[in-house]
Formats: sequence, structure tokens, C-alpha cells
Amino acid sequence: MVYLTRVENFNAAHRLWVNEWSEEKNFEVFGKCANKNFHGHNYKLLITVKGMPDPFTGFVMNAKELGDIIKQEITEVLDHTNLNMDDNFLPEGIQATSENLVIYIWKQLVPHLNNCALHSVRLYETEKIYAEYFGETMNEF
Amino acid sequence: MVYLTRVENFNAAHRLWVNEWSEEKNFEVFGKCANKNFHGHNYKLLITVKGMPDPFTGFVMNAKELGDIIKQEITEVLDHTNLNMDDNFLPEGIQATSENLVIYIWKQLVPHLNNCALHSVRLYETEKIYAEYFGETMNEF
Amino acid sequence: MVYLTRVENFNAAHRLWVNEWSEEKNFEVFGKCANKNFHGHNYKLLITVKGMPDPFTGFVMNAKELGDIIKQEITEVLDHTNLNMDDNFLPEGIQATSENLVIYIWKQLVPHLNNCALHSVRLYETEKIYAEYFGETMNEF
Amino acid sequence: MVYLTRVENFNAAHRLWVNEWSEEKNFEVFGKCANKNFHGHNYKLLITVKGMPDPFTGFVMNAKELGDIIKQEITEVLDHTNLNMDDNFLPEGIQATSENLVIYIWKQLVPHLNNCALHSVRLYETEKIYAEYFGETMNEF
Amino acid sequence: MVYLTRVENFNAAHRLWVNEWSEEKNFEVFGKCANKNFHGHNYKLLITVKGMPDPFTGFVMNAKELGDIIKQEITEVLDHTNLNMDDNFLPEGIQATSENLVIYIWKQLVPHLNNCALHSVRLYETEKIYAEYFGETMNEF
Amino acid sequence: MVYLTRVENFNAAHRLWVNEWSEEKNFEVFGKCANKNFHGHNYKLLITVKGMPDPFTGFVMNAKELGDIIKQEITEVLDHTNLNMDDNFLPEGIQATSENLVIYIWKQLVPHLNNCALHSVRLYETEKIYAEYFGETMNEF
Repeated sequence: MVYLTRVENFNAAHRLWVNEWSEEKNFEVFGKCANKNFHGHNYKLLITVKGMPDPFTGFVMNAKELGDIIKQEITEVLDHTNLNMDDNFLPEGIQATSENLVIYIWKQLVPHLNNCALHSVRLYETEKIYAEYFGETMNEF
Repeated sequence: MVYLTRVENFNAAHRLWVNEWSEEKNFEVFGKCANKNFHGHNYKLLITVKGMPDPFTGFVMNAKELGDIIKQEITEVLDHTNLNMDDNFLPEGIQATSENLVIYIWKQLVPHLNNCALHSVRLYETEKIYAEYFGETMNEF
Repeated sequence: MVYLTRVENFNAAHRLWVNEWSEEKNFEVFGKCANKNFHGHNYKLLITVKGMPDPFTGFVMNAKELGDIIKQEITEVLDHTNLNMDDNFLPEGIQATSENLVIYIWKQLVPHLNNCALHSVRLYETEKIYAEYFGETMNEF
Repeated sequence: MVYLTRVENFNAAHRLWVNEWSEEKNFEVFGKCANKNFHGHNYKLLITVKGMPDPFTGFVMNAKELGDIIKQEITEVLDHTNLNMDDNFLPEGIQATSENLVIYIWKQLVPHLNNCALHSVRLYETEKIYAEYFGETMNEF
Repeated sequence: MVYLTRVENFNAAHRLWVNEWSEEKNFEVFGKCANKNFHGHNYKLLITVKGMPDPFTGFVMNAKELGDIIKQEITEVLDHTNLNMDDNFLPEGIQATSENLVIYIWKQLVPHLNNCALHSVRLYETEKIYAEYFGETMNEF
Repeated sequence: MVYLTRVENFNAAHRLWVNEWSEEKNFEVFGKCANKNFHGHNYKLLITVKGMPDPFTGFVMNAKELGDIIKQEITEVLDHTNLNMDDNFLPEGIQATSENLVIYIWKQLVPHLNNCALHSVRLYETEKIYAEYFGETMNEF
């Protein structure tokens, strides 16, 4: 079993805000991440797949093909968007945190990976904060 | 003459859009940077000052003091804001490009640097694109 | 289960030296790390916690709160200190290696993380060497 | 149990090509990686070992000794070579992909690590693509 | 005057060898860079242009357009090639050193930059070695 | 004229302290950098030389030779030392700031560079702070 990781990037705006909460509580919990006109990040995404290297190609998966799937399903959908306002793949009412994004990116990618297994989705929000998801059990959305 | 550089960061949303132009022309020129709901970046800012090292401290400028000035005048003003919508320091009608931002950051910092000269302002919009300004002559805004 | 990682930094001096050994043996084992007047590093610390994202906030843990705990319990204690001489949290006679530091940082952080589990402590001593600890069984100190 | 990682580098040329396939099929699968005169990479190698820190030295393994083994067994063998043409350690007919290289590097290192266990071999081909191997079951070569 | 920099990458094989010299002298001067079957690098290229930001767009030059020119004229020509053997743009007998490459990249780009001036070409051969050229007088090739 | 840069590293302890000042004033000016038992850094050093590429080798200077000079004259002298206490090359009473270090490194290197000119010495104290010196006029030491 060998793991292959590919890095891609997208740039997006977002804001953290719970509609059911007062403005005061939102700022208490989210600080300046609750600012009303959004802020943004250069997101860096690491997708890891795993499998046996093919005896002919030596590939767990063709890295170019993996890049194409990530771009088509994820980064071209999210790049240069507003994660709260634009009609991209986060369901209504789900905060655009890195923690929720890695779960959704996982769900989005799985159906497109036929010959090898998805191992992890890691998303850097900044160079100092990242979330990672390995497909382990979670809350139902 | 020795040069001292300090790096700081801020995260902001922006959008490129010329009001006088049609939607078609805006997208032709700016591509997805013109998307209406903004996108965002982790901006990385490098401020370089120059001067003679003080014979007692060995400092061109106290790096902590330089950091405090950058934070107070620039990064705390711009961090977690929308460069188009929030009332931060870009004049009305000036595009929030990295090229314009470095000029404004220069103008904002100069009055606060008394004992040594500002040499350059460099701003990374992404890891692959940055603008830099050395105070050379420019268009009047 | 989602994993959230936060990066913090501290700068410290240290030296590797076993009191029970001769100077010759110390230099044989530790090389220039045994130099008597210490040397130092820019340590980079990655703390990973894990849990279910909260349905309201989308947070495994508030990254700002995690940063505050790391700073208060670890980096403000160790930053700009001498890991051998200063009264920080390493017990007498325990070498200030990255391997020992990650165990102590783990022990120091666990009591302060109430709502989610500590998953790993990674410490870069240089860009080329790092230690990591996942709370697995170990020698008693 | 603590994990210790050391990073080393080597620069090499390679090409992906299956002799049993037509030129057309090689280019269809490998794209420009099949170009006949080779291309090359700055490979970055991360070797992770695990064990109990020694009560005297605080070392899982002496990082200098680990570096010496990696250099002697791996990077000095592969640095400034052609992974397809030179007589380095990949068997005839095995593609010089990162996936295959991590398996061979694992096999090469294991006999030289006596006092602690090899945990993983990670190889960056570029900043955006890397393979990793943990010694899990695999095809027989 | 504002400076705008764009980063691009290419991967290539090369070898340093002077035909007029003996094998012994080649290895004495070039070391393992003279190995006969080539080695390779992940080259990182920084192109800096300068000019006045346009009053409408705020651009010294459209960064997307700059990227397209660099890709078309340089990185797509050099990527996944052998700098010695393939018919890319280095003249016969000119060593494929970073120093010579930056001069040739400069010459190749200048005719394609109409509205703003080329300021510098920087080429990283590895993370530890780079060459840079500002168009200053040089030997005639 | 082409510029060639080489990066090297060293790890050292230091402390900022003016003997003529009170403890109170030292802490007021230097903050925790004045802590009595030192702290330390992973210093990253960039040396840039300039000249015409040699028509045979394509080198401004052999990068291996440049690396050997930097190691012999600078990094092997300073690595794993205490910049205040050890007998390395800073004169008595000169603060071990990055600003003073770049001047001394410049003076130390110049006599060893015969065939090309030293252009700049850049020293990163952390990833966020660096000093740079171009040999411009300065205070006499």
C-alpha cells in the first residue's frame, strides 16, 4: 500500500456567522471572522489516495488524472468564490470552516475515485491552521 | 547602510471591478477576479527599512517597534476586511490590486518611521504573485 | 472525526550533555550539540486536536482558543529561554531533545483541552529534523 | 513511542516509459513524462523512525547517525544520477515513479536501522506531488 | 514605478560538460554535475516587470497575461526536457547553467513585453542556489 | 552581469545586552531578547556574488566553491556556538544583532572572493525578520 498526495490551491472569501445567534454572541465566538463584509484566504488543499502501484505504470493513480479530478470537482468550483454567498457545494446553514470543508471535499471526491481509495483531505486555511479528515464517522449533516 | 525586513500577514476579501466598464469588459480583463461576491487571499507583507545600526543596540530599528507600527497602521486595519467594501484606507475608485496596495501601504507607513528610512514594501497576494514598491515616482492619485 | 492543527513558534537555546559521562564521551555522542556555551533554534510547534465539528460553529475547537492555550502553556514559557538553565518545565536531568520536548508538551497541554482530544505534538528543531508524539506508551520519567 | 523525522535531498533525471507499449500509448498514459531525453527533479526525502527515547541521550536515534545512513544508502547513491540509465538500485523494468522509489528506499534502509523501527518513507517529486510508504503489504517485485 | 513578480515552474534534466576538456578536467570542475547520464531539477522561475499601475485596472501588467507569456515562451518550451539534448532555446555550446539560462530567458521574454519593462529574471536551481539577471551588460554570445 | 546566490544555515545562541545600561533599561529596549541565559535561532544565510558568466563553464563562480568558502569562513565558525560568549568573529562590545552580523560576514567573506564581486549578505534570524547588507558606507567599528 502506497500513498500518493497531490496539492492544489484555491482562493475564496468567507465569513463565520450563526444566524440563530445575536451579533454580540457571533463576535464573542468568531471574533473578526464574523466581520460582515467577509475576508478571504489562499486555501491549500492536499488530497491523499492509497493503493498498490500498478506493475506497468508504477502509479497508485496517475497524478495528472488525480489533479484533473481535484480541479474539476473542487478547486474550479470554489476558486474565486464566496463560500457563504455563491452557489457552491456547502449546504445551507453549514459554516464554511476548514473542518466542514474537508468533510464536503471528501464526499465530493469519493465518487470520482474508482481505482484507488481516498485516504485523507487536508486543507490549509493559512500557513498556521489546517484541518484534516480521514473519512472517520461523523455527525450526520 | 543596513536593511532590515519584517514580515507580517493579513487575510482579506477583494474583487476587481471598474464601474465605468460593462460586465462583459470587466470579465474580459479581470477574469474570475471580477466575480461579484468577492474572493480572498492570505496576504503576506514585507516591510524593509534602512539605516546605520545604532552603536549601542546594533539595531537599524527595533524590530519589535517596527512590527508594532506595521500591525497598528496596516495589518490590524486590513485584516479580516473586505478591501472593496470596508472603510479601510484605499480611496474610492482605486482598485484593490497588489500594485495599488503597496503604494498605499508606503504612504501610510512613512509618517510613522522617524529614525530610519522606508526602503520597500512587498506584498504577496499568493505564493506566485507579488508587487513591490520602492517609493519611486508614480501617477498622482 | 476531524483533525485541526495549529502552528506556533518559539526560539530557545539548549545544549545536549549527560552529567554522568566524560567530556570525551559527550562529544563523541552529541558532537557540536555538546558545545559548552549552548546553541539555539527557531522551534516550530504543530499541535493537532481531533473531534466532531460543532453543528453551530463548525469548529472541532476554536482555533483562536487553541492558539491561546498553546501560547500560555507552552510557547510563552519556552520562548527566548535556555532549555537547560531556565526554570521551564523540563525535569532535572531530562535532555532537552525534541523527542523529550514533545512528550512534555503533550503532558502540559492535555489538562487544558477539555472538549476535544489531543492527537499529536510535532516539533521542528530545524527545517530538516522534527519529532512527533501521539501519546503512545513510553518510559516513565 | 516517539517519531523522529529527518529530511534529505537529491537531484536526479528520469523518464516514464513501458517498453511493452507503443510510443502512442506511452504518451497517452505518461504525457510529457515520457519525453525521450528525460527530465528531472529536486527530490526531497523524509525518513521517519520510531522508538522510545533513550533515558540518557533523549534520542530515539541519533539524528546525525540517521542522516549518515540516509546519505550513504540513499542520497549519495541517487544524487545527480539518471534513475533509468544509471546503475542505481531500481531493478530492471521497474518504473522510476515516486511510488516505486519509496518502496525501494524502505527496503534499502531497513537493514541499516538496528535500534529503532522505520516508520515511513516520504518522497516529494515536486512541491505538489509526493508518495509515502509505511511498510504495508504490497505486490511482490 | 511598481514591480510585479510572477512565479512559474519547470522540471528539466541537464548536465555540465565542456567538450574541449578532458573527462578528468570536467569532473574536477563540475564534480557530479558532469555525470554522463544527466541529472535534473525542479526549476523555479521568478519574472519581475515594472511600470506605472494603470489608473483603471490598477495593474502594472495583467498577471494572468504575464503568466501566459512566461508559460508560452519559457516554461512550456523547457518543461520536461533535457536542456542539453532537446532542441530548446540554448545555443550550441552554451552550458545549461542557471547563470546562462537567466540571460536566455531574458532575451526570450523581452520581445513579448510591450507595455511594461522587464526588470529581472531569477531562476532557482534548488532551494539553495539561484541566479538572477537584470539585463546589465554582458559577454556577447 | 549575473548574480548568483547560495543559501547556508547555522544554529546559534545569543542575547542582546548593553553593559553600560541598567537591567531595567536593557529589558525596556530589548524585551525578552535580554533574558540572561540566552535564546537561539536557526539562522539562514544568503550570499550573493556577481560577475560575467565564464564562457567555458557558464559559471559566475563555481557554486560548490562558493559553498565551501561560506562554510569554512562563516557557518563552521558560527554553527552551534553562543554568539556572545564563544570566541567567534564579532568584536567585543558589538551586539550580536542580525544587522551587525551581516556587516561582519561581509568583511569576512570579501578577502576570499577573488574572481567575482560580493553583492549582498542577507541573514534571516527567523522566517519573519532578516537583515541585508550591500557593502554601503557605514559607521566605523
